[in-house]
Amino acid sequence: MGEELLDLMERVRRGEVTAEAAANALSRETDLGFAVVDDHRATRTGLPEVVFGQGKTPEQVAHILLHLCGQGLPALATRVEPHQAEAVLRQVPDAVYEAVPRLLWLAGEHPAFQVRVEGVVAVVSAGTSDLPVAEEAARCAEWFGLEVARAWDVGVAGLHRLLSRLDVLREARAIIAVAGMEGALPSVIAGLVPAPVIAVPTSTGYGTHLGGLTPLFAMLNSCASGVVVVNVDNGFGAAQAAWRILGTEA
Amino acid sequence: MGEELLDLMERVRRGEVTAEAAANALSRETDLGFAVVDDHRATRTGLPEVVFGQGKTPEQVAHILLHLCGQGLPALATRVEPHQAEAVLRQVPDAVYEAVPRLLWLAGEHPAFQVRVEGVVAVVSAGTSDLPVAEEAARCAEWFGLEVARAWDVGVAGLHRLLSRLDVLREARAIIAVAGMEGALPSVIAGLVPAPVIAVPTSTGYGTHLGGLTPLFAMLNSCASGVVVVNVDNGFGAAQAAWRILGTEA
Amino acid sequence: MGEELLDLMERVRRGEVTAEAAANALSRETDLGFAVVDDHRATRTGLPEVVFGQGKTPEQVAHILLHLCGQGLPALATRVEPHQAEAVLRQVPDAVYEAVPRLLWLAGEHPAFQVRVEGVVAVVSAGTSDLPVAEEAARCAEWFGLEVARAWDVGVAGLHRLLSRLDVLREARAIIAVAGMEGALPSVIAGLVPAPVIAVPTSTGYGTHLGGLTPLFAMLNSCASGVVVVNVDNGFGAAQAAWRILGTEA
Amino acid sequence: MGEELLDLMERVRRGEVTAEAAANALSRETDLGFAVVDDHRATRTGLPEVVFGQGKTPEQVAHILLHLCGQGLPALATRVEPHQAEAVLRQVPDAVYEAVPRLLWLAGEHPAFQVRVEGVVAVVSAGTSDLPVAEEAARCAEWFGLEVARAWDVGVAGLHRLLSRLDVLREARAIIAVAGMEGALPSVIAGLVPAPVIAVPTSTGYGTHLGGLTPLFAMLNSCASGVVVVNVDNGFGAAQAAWRILGTEA
Amino acid sequence: MGEELLDLMERVRRGEVTAEAAANALSRETDLGFAVVDDHRATRTGLPEVVFGQGKTPEQVAHILLHLCGQGLPALATRVEPHQAEAVLRQVPDAVYEAVPRLLWLAGEHPAFQVRVEGVVAVVSAGTSDLPVAEEAARCAEWFGLEVARAWDVGVAGLHRLLSRLDVLREARAIIAVAGMEGALPSVIAGLVPAPVIAVPTSTGYGTHLGGLTPLFAMLNSCASGVVVVNVDNGFGAAQAAWRILGTEA
Amino acid sequence: MGEELLDLMERVRRGEVTAEAAANALSRETDLGFAVVDDHRATRTGLPEVVFGQGKTPEQVAHILLHLCGQGLPALATRVEPHQAEAVLRQVPDAVYEAVPRLLWLAGEHPAFQVRVEGVVAVVSAGTSDLPVAEEAARCAEWFGLEVARAWDVGVAGLHRLLSRLDVLREARAIIAVAGMEGALPSVIAGLVPAPVIAVPTSTGYGTHLGGLTPLFAMLNSCASGVVVVNVDNGFGAAQAAWRILGTEA
Amino acid sequence: MGEELLDLMERVRRGEVTAEAAANALSRETDLGFAVVDDHRATRTGLPEVVFGQGKTPEQVAHILLHLCGQGLPALATRVEPHQAEAVLRQVPDAVYEAVPRLLWLAGEHPAFQVRVEGVVAVVSAGTSDLPVAEEAARCAEWFGLEVARAWDVGVAGLHRLLSRLDVLREARAIIAVAGMEGALPSVIAGLVPAPVIAVPTSTGYGTHLGGLTPLFAMLNSCASGVVVVNVDNGFGAAQAAWRILGTEA
Amino acid sequence: MGEELLDLMERVRRGEVTAEAAANALSRETDLGFAVVDDHRATRTGLPEVVFGQGKTPEQVAHILLHLCGQGLPALATRVEPHQAEAVLRQVPDAVYEAVPRLLWLAGEHPAFQVRVEGVVAVVSAGTSDLPVAEEAARCAEWFGLEVARAWDVGVAGLHRLLSRLDVLREARAIIAVAGMEGALPSVIAGLVPAPVIAVPTSTGYGTHLGGLTPLFAMLNSCASGVVVVNVDNGFGAAQAAWRILGTEA
Repeated sequence: MGEELLDLMERVRRGEVTAEAAANALSRETDLGFAVVDDHRATRTGLPEVVFGQGKTPEQVAHILLHLCGQGLPALATRVEPHQAEAVLRQVPDAVYEAVPRLLWLAGEHPAFQVRVEGVVAVVSAGTSDLPVAEEAARCAEWFGLEVARAWDVGVAGLHRLLSRLDVLREARAIIAVAGMEGALPSVIAGLVPAPVIAVPTSTGYGTHLGGLTPLFAMLNSCASGVVVVNVDNGFGAAQAAWRILGTEA
Repeated sequence: MGEELLDLMERVRRGEVTAEAAANALSRETDLGFAVVDDHRATRTGLPEVVFGQGKTPEQVAHILLHLCGQGLPALATRVEPHQAEAVLRQVPDAVYEAVPRLLWLAGEHPAFQVRVEGVVAVVSAGTSDLPVAEEAARCAEWFGLEVARAWDVGVAGLHRLLSRLDVLREARAIIAVAGMEGALPSVIAGLVPAPVIAVPTSTGYGTHLGGLTPLFAMLNSCASGVVVVNVDNGFGAAQAAWRILGTEA
Repeated sequence: MGEELLDLMERVRRGEVTAEAAANALSRETDLGFAVVDDHRATRTGLPEVVFGQGKTPEQVAHILLHLCGQGLPALATRVEPHQAEAVLRQVPDAVYEAVPRLLWLAGEHPAFQVRVEGVVAVVSAGTSDLPVAEEAARCAEWFGLEVARAWDVGVAGLHRLLSRLDVLREARAIIAVAGMEGALPSVIAGLVPAPVIAVPTSTGYGTHLGGLTPLFAMLNSCASGVVVVNVDNGFGAAQAAWRILGTEA
Repeated sequence: MGEELLDLMERVRRGEVTAEAAANALSRETDLGFAVVDDHRATRTGLPEVVFGQGKTPEQVAHILLHLCGQGLPALATRVEPHQAEAVLRQVPDAVYEAVPRLLWLAGEHPAFQVRVEGVVAVVSAGTSDLPVAEEAARCAEWFGLEVARAWDVGVAGLHRLLSRLDVLREARAIIAVAGMEGALPSVIAGLVPAPVIAVPTSTGYGTHLGGLTPLFAMLNSCASGVVVVNVDNGFGAAQAAWRILGTEA
Repeated sequence: MGEELLDLMERVRRGEVTAEAAANALSRETDLGFAVVDDHRATRTGLPEVVFGQGKTPEQVAHILLHLCGQGLPALATRVEPHQAEAVLRQVPDAVYEAVPRLLWLAGEHPAFQVRVEGVVAVVSAGTSDLPVAEEAARCAEWFGLEVARAWDVGVAGLHRLLSRLDVLREARAIIAVAGMEGALPSVIAGLVPAPVIAVPTSTGYGTHLGGLTPLFAMLNSCASGVVVVNVDNGFGAAQAAWRILGTEA
Repeated sequence: MGEELLDLMERVRRGEVTAEAAANALSRETDLGFAVVDDHRATRTGLPEVVFGQGKTPEQVAHILLHLCGQGLPALATRVEPHQAEAVLRQVPDAVYEAVPRLLWLAGEHPAFQVRVEGVVAVVSAGTSDLPVAEEAARCAEWFGLEVARAWDVGVAGLHRLLSRLDVLREARAIIAVAGMEGALPSVIAGLVPAPVIAVPTSTGYGTHLGGLTPLFAMLNSCASGVVVVNVDNGFGAAQAAWRILGTEA
Repeated sequence: MGEELLDLMERVRRGEVTAEAAANALSRETDLGFAVVDDHRATRTGLPEVVFGQGKTPEQVAHILLHLCGQGLPALATRVEPHQAEAVLRQVPDAVYEAVPRLLWLAGEHPAFQVRVEGVVAVVSAGTSDLPVAEEAARCAEWFGLEVARAWDVGVAGLHRLLSRLDVLREARAIIAVAGMEGALPSVIAGLVPAPVIAVPTSTGYGTHLGGLTPLFAMLNSCASGVVVVNVDNGFGAAQAAWRILGTEA
Repeated sequence: MGEELLDLMERVRRGEVTAEAAANALSRETDLGFAVVDDHRATRTGLPEVVFGQGKTPEQVAHILLHLCGQGLPALATRVEPHQAEAVLRQVPDAVYEAVPRLLWLAGEHPAFQVRVEGVVAVVSAGTSDLPVAEEAARCAEWFGLEVARAWDVGVAGLHRLLSRLDVLREARAIIAVAGMEGALPSVIAGLVPAPVIAVPTSTGYGTHLGGLTPLFAMLNSCASGVVVVNVDNGFGAAQAAWRILGTEA
């Protein structure tokens, strides 16, 4: 926004823009009544706005997706439950829904699919119950234009399963490590390879698992330095972080 | 106590013991005013009473140790800080103090050192800061008459360090795995060997480590089934558990 | 894995195995797409892989059980809810479901039932509401080939109920003590007998019970040393721990 | 206060008291600047005001005690640390300090010592480290005029120690049960006798003890119904509760 | 149990009872398979066993109630949800169910109704949403034979509502104060009257109410000393505590 | 109540009111059996009583609203779920229900709508999912007679959205800032304008969001001093606080 | 900032300011190396910057205060411990330190003392141990130019103490209610008067007091609506909030 | 390790290495008795081992640093308190200590300083009290060979301070955002620029700050997607993560 501000001021100075218009120009998003869509986010940060489906009505989800699409923007919603998806699909039949990662999007030739970032993101999961979160991370990363390599069910109780996939880890520019239970997977991975490791704790568990706080805290205390963490079950956030990392150029 | 009770009743029936004496016989411990020493615990459960030093005055610690010793019983105190130890040693010069595991005991030819349980306990620690707890476990186990094999500083961020000590793990009848940080060591070990794994979380850490609750919770959620856990920093308890396990006979 | 590694290297050195084959050999588990079944776990740690049913679809549970069975391996799933079981039973009619401990398995003459470990495990519960967890522990232990003695509803508010079952406690090589509420049962038991005591807190309760954290924490603070603890409601884990303990030989 | 209010109004009506005086009469306590001493509390609830020493300067403690004493009222301060006590004693040489329960009082022939409530309060403690809290309860109860029977170090890991003191429990009109660790003592006691059981958790412990929250929560979940609980280490509050109970008449 | 033990031993000594019979006599409860009913609890502690309905099947509730009734004992179950009650009532048509306090009992001329304890228990509640818990306390107290005076909806935000009921508080031998929200009611009451105050926090609330932990903690920190507390929503426990208090005789 | 008390006493003194009547006058609320309606609250604090619908039966809600209405008082219920509203509307057809803020009221020419407080309250929300809480605040404020300016969906991840609404913030006499997620909105606002900022955390979120505790704690730690906070999702409380603030006159 | 931005743009447009100068103008604060002093905060929000002393070296505190003073600005530091104050006073002898509220300031004829806001703030505290926080609130409010009325030690366990100070509460335009323990004071006050009530929990207490979280949570759950809360011990923040409220004009 | 393993096997196959030597080769670290130094970590993951000073004796810190140095390796210790540093400097006079970030290292021409990673890391802090953690991040990053741009004291309560440093944020390949209090800084930054944002919460604060958990949780719930988080006060970990990110090549 800093550069835009400078540009804007220069144009005000040259009389190309009035002071009032300049002040107004700071609020270019579209007001849908219940949501202010940030149409220009892609320009500003490089990534389009994504709809967080949880807690929204199907009408709201459909409305925002169609609006984005109408602007020629990519349209993706996360955390969409099957009953929400059904309702949206009745309104927007050409939307696509994937049940495991709970993602819903409008297909098309959107910029998000065209900007190609180089390098592979490895998405690695510890157990079968971590799959929905791991797939959310993997599918979102693909939707952002990243190439993804998957390695499922390689938890630390059977080390050979992880060691046999070392090639995947070594070739990745960033690694998303998804684990519930005690959340030990990112520590072991970060001790083996130098790539950035984004740890994603999952909420599957019981008792002292505390809905995922235990693997989250364990990951934050990793004995292998340099592990970074996102919120419980936040596969989407991990994918965004990977996009930020791979988009970075020296 | 059940068998003793039955015995006692039989002796009451035979007139060898009066009813009053029988009731009294249930309270054979020595009352020191501030503590009731359970002199017969060794007979009942096989292990002598051990003094928990934390929160006691040096006078209390010295008094109880000397009382036990006077009864011909082994005398050990745990969690004895240096300033407590100094004060006790001034009163009881032939006591022995080890600063790292914070143990203080009266030497001698006590039963505790003579009852030999077969088999080796491996005590394994993840990092240097886990050493005091690991040594408390190892030294207590030795004091209980167990043979101990140590493997220090074999945390999961450098797997080869652990794998190179697999021999120690394979030969042990029970394994005490001491770890702070994310507490992942017991999971990896329990995935490699079939022996009982007693996990001991340590309090070294900061932030979301929560004074050891995080590795404790992680260990309770181990993806390798059959791991059992003791309280944070409870090396002594782990040694007692190992003694219980190795004392078990088919 | 250490010995296997050494063997493998020796065979590589003798030219019996290529380097590539050796590296591949580290990943012998079967990939089912959504799960990598660890077929050789029984060889490595002595216990077959058990399916954790919670959070899996009936299709996934059935698929993994049938796969294990097809490999001549024992097939057991824990935490299977009735509606999951019904769906599995429609696909695999000769599966057996027990509703109280929520266990589902494929019958047959599996190794798990043949390896006989000597000695009895006592499974003791404090109240009626602890029964499902206590039965999970008892039935799993039996499935692992252990002999089980049960003592139900012997909580500490009526001490005579526990004292009248002292025979069961004295004859056991390991004791699984299941308790909700304030979780005091393991302390009282460990003060009476020298056997290893595996404490299992249960989640039944309200208010400050905190879903089982209160009895869990109480058990970790037992005034009777040497008590070890597993996660809330983890009857299966307690049974595995008992198997590890009884499988231990001097 | 209700009856006083009615009386006051009646006297206003009869012209014996002006409206202003009546309103003023509601604030009869003495204002010391930093504290408003409730001189008439003994009249209203039967118990004199007691000074909570923690967080007060020695000057404040001395000032309030002397003020109470000057009013012919009993003067007691709780939670007085040795350094506070020393400073107070320099100012008020005839004050009495007991270090274990951390109590400080001004001796004399005060009402508090003369009102005799019938019946005995048993104060029972689980371990040596619970002594300071147990003594605070016992000494406060005595200061309130109650007769106290003590039973120290009778924790549940050695049941016979408790059972041998059953006489004390049976003869008490109320029982104060002080316990740290897992806090199981009140449950066992309340299962044995019908008297009211006031449970006092103590803060001695570590790890999952959570500074006394664990025994507190355990006591609130007692499987023996009718146990009531006070705050961690609150021996004084337990004594007040016992006074309230014994002061109750049918 | 202590006196019974002494009696039993004396009878063993006189040959009236064999040692084996004596040991057996310690386990007089009836084993129903899933529950061991403590038929003699009324003799030991003065109160009959009460069934905790939560988590039990209707069959279990009905079975235990009928068993107690068959023994001529009073039969009450708490925390019985409407669907449980319906199922029980189909089996035991003369049972009585009260929906607000969720109590179910078998009517009859039971001892519980005949033993009359002198004095009144006041049950006081802060708000309308505290009613189910307050009624559980009041109805249980009545079932235990106590006389109950109710004062509903007298929370501290409208002090005059409480002050206008001071007569109820002054005449009670014990006060059960039920409050959710910030749980301030017991403090205000204990500042006004000398009777024992049993505080019952309720779970109604949201956000930082933490399911009732907040009023519970507030009550434990009452600035009016001598307040005792039971678990969240534990109206039954408060009634038992009141029974213990009123049953106490100088 | 202080002035009323003084008045009342003066009238007692003049013989206009008897002492008994005066004491009775302190309890003027209407007793509905399950609730004591505080009819005179509006006189005392300026605001009518509002019904908290959560946990009440539709019958109770309808009964209280009709009673208030019958007294010529405004009648509003908060936290009314659709199924509750339906049931109330069947009984009271001219009630009005708004589903988003979950408010139900009886229309009419009530005092609450006539007392006009000067000045505007700005209600600002960070995201779409905060809308129900923000609308509860806005609609309640309007019902209390305040003028409201809304600014929706102006969270800090798109600063220009907030900056473009600075006019709304500058003209308000008080600002209600509603935010979930990390709860940063009130900090940014309080750094821009001098008006009182009432922060309302919302419960929408997952993982470490802890049901709204995280934004609540963040708001309490705002780096912009003078931010005040209400409970999670408490839009109604924020509106009352705004009413208190705007009702204040120098 | 909005209006300033508009002004700035207008001046850019008129050529009075270059675009670069305008962009620079957005960063007018003084960089001291370790702190960026926001010299113009008083202009923007009406209140000068105040130094948070905790965690700063005496040198840093002195340096910032002198800098502010040198700019003709008021200079106040909060949370200054005696040893910090001594060190600052050695450098800046005409600074003033008050030990109870831990405040340090440079005297002088500063704007902060001249802007007079109409109306009185009542600062009310529940107990003696709440005094330091209450005085921090009162002294800061005075430093901000507000008139303050104090009422100390009026906790709810002795209601008459509070009722006798009702005049103070009725005449205040805002009330700061400081309380530790169970934090009930704000609820009682807000039920009596219509003014805004800013609740300040204090950290004095033990056990379930949780360092002040318990009164904080209790205050957030106040049964008297419209109470707003600041962080534990945050007397300064309460004073700022009062300033914001009283500064508000219709 | 995967590639090394493959290499090792190939060399075993060619007879260049014996099987035993190969197995031994997996444990190349130096055993110092109390610590096993991982000398080859730099080769494996690209970063040398760094000593965590907290909880180690000065002797241990000095010993490990000298050992690393003796191996020609870079030697750095973090979290070294002044008294530890003094003791080390007496033993190793040419060590360098920086007090603010608490770092101690042995100077020299080490690889760590020679491997140059392209691009700048911005280290940004919200307040003065966050400086020690921010400097730990910045100095460690420099020690790892990264170029660092600092922006101190740019918290969100004064947005213009942050906006005036937008140039620093725009030019960085990765941003380390250090903040205590409510932890809002990373959200605002991530909404402005597309670079990876590593959020570091700090422990400075009080009350609901919970020792840094509150800003940590807030950061994990950032409304600006793609923010990643490290443990409280973990400046070193953030620097390692930045190194991992910048070391990444397409």
